[in-house]
Amino acid sequence: MGLVVQKYGGSSVADAEGIKRVAKRIVEAKKNGHQVVVVVSAMGDTTDELIDLAGEVSPMPSGREFDMLLTAGERISMALLAMAIKNLGHEAQSFTGSQAGVITDSVHNKARIIDVTPGRIKSSVDEGNIAIVAGFQGVSQDKKDITTLGRGGSDTTAVALAAALDAEVCEIYTDVDGVFTSDPRVVKKARKIDWISFEDMLELASSGSKVLLHRCVEYARRYNIPIHVRSSFSGLKGTWVSNEPQGNQPMEQALISGVAHDTSEAKVTVVGVPDKPGEAAKIFRAISDAEINIDMVVQNVSAATTGLTDITFTLPKTDGKKAIGALEKTRAAVGFDSLRYDDQVAKVSLVGAGMKTNPGVTATFFEALSGAGVNIELISTSEIRISVVCRADDVNEAVRAVHTAFGLDSDSDEAVVYGGTGR
Amino acid sequence: MGLVVQKYGGSSVADAEGIKRVAKRIVEAKKNGHQVVVVVSAMGDTTDELIDLAGEVSPMPSGREFDMLLTAGERISMALLAMAIKNLGHEAQSFTGSQAGVITDSVHNKARIIDVTPGRIKSSVDEGNIAIVAGFQGVSQDKKDITTLGRGGSDTTAVALAAALDAEVCEIYTDVDGVFTSDPRVVKKARKIDWISFEDMLELASSGSKVLLHRCVEYARRYNIPIHVRSSFSGLKGTWVSNEPQGNQPMEQALISGVAHDTSEAKVTVVGVPDKPGEAAKIFRAISDAEINIDMVVQNVSAATTGLTDITFTLPKTDGKKAIGALEKTRAAVGFDSLRYDDQVAKVSLVGAGMKTNPGVTATFFEALSGAGVNIELISTSEIRISVVCRADDVNEAVRAVHTAFGLDSDSDEAVVYGGTGR
Repeated sequence: MGLVVQKYGGSSVADAEGIKRVAKRIVEAKKNGHQVVVVVSAMGDTTDELIDLAGEVSPMPSGREFDMLLTAGERISMALLAMAIKNLGHEAQSFTGSQAGVITDSVHNKARIIDVTPGRIKSSVDEGNIAIVAGFQGVSQDKKDITTLGRGGSDTTAVALAAALDAEVCEIYTDVDGVFTSDPRVVKKARKIDWISFEDMLELASSGSKVLLHRCVEYARRYNIPIHVRSSFSGLKGTWVSNEPQGNQPMEQALISGVAHDTSEAKVTVVGVPDKPGEAAKIFRAISDAEINIDMVVQNVSAATTGLTDITFTLPKTDGKKAIGALEKTRAAVGFDSLRYDDQVAKVSLVGAGMKTNPGVTATFFEALSGAGVNIELISTSEIRISVVCRADDVNEAVRAVHTAFGLDSDSDEAVVYGGTGR
Repeated sequence: MGLVVQKYGGSSVADAEGIKRVAKRIVEAKKNGHQVVVVVSAMGDTTDELIDLAGEVSPMPSGREFDMLLTAGERISMALLAMAIKNLGHEAQSFTGSQAGVITDSVHNKARIIDVTPGRIKSSVDEGNIAIVAGFQGVSQDKKDITTLGRGGSDTTAVALAAALDAEVCEIYTDVDGVFTSDPRVVKKARKIDWISFEDMLELASSGSKVLLHRCVEYARRYNIPIHVRSSFSGLKGTWVSNEPQGNQPMEQALISGVAHDTSEAKVTVVGVPDKPGEAAKIFRAISDAEINIDMVVQNVSAATTGLTDITFTLPKTDGKKAIGALEKTRAAVGFDSLRYDDQVAKVSLVGAGMKTNPGVTATFFEALSGAGVNIELISTSEIRISVVCRADDVNEAVRAVHTAFGLDSDSDEAVVYGGTGR
């Protein structure tokens, strides 16, 4: 049997009991004959406590020092986890990101991995140790400074190490049983997905599903590392994310993977934009210069009588104020009439590679929304996704209606097959 | 002006306020034109909290992992300190022991420094930064594992860096104003010492004075690095420890540097040891094999009638049980009668290079103890120290009597000069 990389998040190692429970699970994998490399996050609230401390000494902490501070969190959890494993009679060694060869660029607080040179990890597991590696951190290639990878960084560490070590699988342990067809807090009948393709998982991640971040899935897809998302609390099988189904999983991909929703975005409409070449470019250049990432963009055909059009886009609510400021400055140059800002919206997305070849998906989707009395404000599609923006108040109703309409509810046996006139 | 190394202990950086206060003091030294390298300990109780956490996951934590765990403490304090300095408008960078080039042997939890290669620190200060270095930690030469230096390790880090960087002075900031002629908690009239030689400081440190540890002073003496021990709370000058007095300090060394006491030791007497070659060696080999460090050793002349003698030694109370166990195993081989163990004892030591050339010191010392009604159980001397063991209950009285007898009390102007018949 080969090497597995396991990643445990902060909620799995929140206290001494959690660390001991995780240690037992790791030892089981070792007993089963695997070489085991473990990536661990900081314990529970440690990172938040360190951030608070930084706020007490400086209103604008330096990026380099902030990273030095935060990486103390994983140092604590990984050393404790190694101790707990050794206490079960197995050999374990902990390694910082730097020691594990996680080489990054120099962008503090959100560094990107540019290389992984896991020589020490390889030697350690070859000597029979379980290697415990600090997630979320690396060392910069040029200055040799400690860096952190930003949100979801530990998952990315795990996938990057799995790729560098040619692991069989990267197991991401979390506090839920896997990836679900929808958010179980909203849709009580949401089903755990046994297998999902990288592509569908990427669409779900960018549509509001929080189990795996886009960045980590993208990395796994590039290096073709199967991810197994599962609970560190239960012993259940979770969700496999990979190119091809594993083992005795169904070979045929489900029509629809899931229904995601996202309430973190706001909608901006630029009203009365002259419909001539270059106007839209000026608007989006202003947004880009303000370092704001936008999501959906919609432009209607212009009214023939006025020669004016409206451009609407969505963006993170947290960037709303900045965007409006940046746009106001371009008003004269672009010559638009007014701006509308609306943060009481939500996005509902249907994701599934099956929709490429199954006509009628779009129709069923809109019928479901209509049946639930949900008004659609924007529509945007990709090859394997349809997204709509609706009122925030309607989002739960919308998600449940779509989930049911596509036969995803857990009391139905299989995803249904649609006929119809294409989407 | 040259480079200064400043060291701040855990009580000086116990919270955000302490860190900000220390940052101001560091910036002052920088403004005065010095290059500044700062060595910092973990905040307040951090280390104890981490030790407790380790105890919760494993009764016998591995040395390697324990070091990985504990070094998180300095990582937190140094990053926060660098942030606080930058917040005052000065550039600062923090470095781990490994980044600072503190190379040690591989003995976890009590590693010894074998080399310091401070290239990154030198570059950082040459670029105008204040460099903040984690105390107490290094990296092992052979395995590149994180190590800790054991008790008082941060002071040793500071002196070692000062030596490697050819610093003008190593300033040790603490929560007292300097080295005193005796423990001010016992002797209200204890005086701060302005200057003390390395030799006298070494004797004080090994006689119970806790301001500086023996190991750190020994290192400073070897590389001739002046130490300035002072308070991080007051702005007062403290105590200089060096080969020669600094600046306008008195050129002539005081007769007596101080009176130290130590209540951490116990007394073991091996009764009825056959007075023939090799018996004492067997006893001390047994103690040594148990890795116990002993302090004073006294053997009386044997009684002519029996050919038996008693051997008495002192050792840390914490090693008492282990010592008795080790000795019991040698009883048959050595053939002694019995063992006596007494941990209700204390050691009082008078330290001063002046006593070498001033007769009468010993007589005055014993007269003072006698006048205070203190019974002497053991006596041991070096060239610049006299130590006695007495009842623990008598120790404060004994220290005060000796302190007064040698004119060390703060309301007298100068140390008195003694005549008499030699010691």
